Amino acid sequence: MSAIQKNVEAASERYSSSFTKGHLALPPAKKYLVLTCMDARIDPASAFGIELGDAHVIRNAGASAVDALRSIVISQQLLATNEIILVKHTGCGMLTFKNEDAFAIVEKNLGAEAVAELKAKNPDFLPFPKLEEAVEEDVKFLKASKVVPDSVPISGWVYEVETGKTRRVV
Amino acid sequence: MSAIQKNVEAASERYSSSFTKGHLALPPAKKYLVLTCMDARIDPASAFGIELGDAHVIRNAGASAVDALRSIVISQQLLATNEIILVKHTGCGMLTFKNEDAFAIVEKNLGAEAVAELKAKNPDFLPFPKLEEAVEEDVKFLKASKVVPDSVPISGWVYEVETGKTRRVV
Repeated sequence: MSAIQKNVEAASERYSSSFTKGHLALPPAKKYLVLTCMDARIDPASAFGIELGDAHVIRNAGASAVDALRSIVISQQLLATNEIILVKHTGCGMLTFKNEDAFAIVEKNLGAEAVAELKAKNPDFLPFPKLEEAVEEDVKFLKASKVVPDSVPISGWVYEVETGKTRRVV
Repeated sequence: MSAIQKNVEAASERYSSSFTKGHLALPPAKKYLVLTCMDARIDPASAFGIELGDAHVIRNAGASAVDALRSIVISQQLLATNEIILVKHTGCGMLTFKNEDAFAIVEKNLGAEAVAELKAKNPDFLPFPKLEEAVEEDVKFLKASKVVPDSVPISGWVYEVETGKTRRVV
């Protein structure tokens, strides 16, 4: 067993020994979803004030709305959430490369077959050159999408990894 | 401003006022990624023992490895993570419906155009009928994928929403 795997087991012992939330229902109590980045420096529960059971939390590279669409639809149509909080962040890895750079790295490290397998389902790594604009574009994408009801409030935010602050963009 | 948006601002005030982690680096310090579900009842940091800055956390409906592939590649190839902890959970919404049910709900609530838009990029909601088998299948998918290097340890777990325990499956 790896050190990381041992750490999961130790955390599980600690966490479950004082766990008191086994009664929570499947649908989020506060009926909203948070979409943010997978970045290691973000703790959505603390930074965005999410109590256990309150909200769905979707995380992917860059907090991409396009990438999250399947999960958003399940959250809204099957589990009745009706508000979206979208949070990208300063210092995001997605600001640091272009699609062709990423595919070149995959080809160098893993070979042409890996690139072909990846491109079959993911032709775009969805990087973005400007942070605030990317927040605006993703909110615009969700508002324009027929998959998201017009009645759903959608706000776009930036989390600052340097200060721990979350500020609204749109 | 909605109550949910006000809650984000209040949390930001609280969190940033005692924030001391502005120095953390972009690449995860412990070089691993956790893939788990968006479910509101999961707090990955506490339940799986993830300190701020240590690991990427990818979350989607059902902790789907197929859906997460773009993010996994970015995590591994651009930010040097080299271990995967995959955690699905008891009581998952993805155990409760089939693809055709979900598309029927989308069509009823949002119309045929919404279904067409969704299917163009997401022809499959990726539900699963059996929990442990779904963990095994996703680990198998990642191990077989040319996109994930053979040297990467991949373990599959189940988090119990009733007890707060995380147990290893594979």
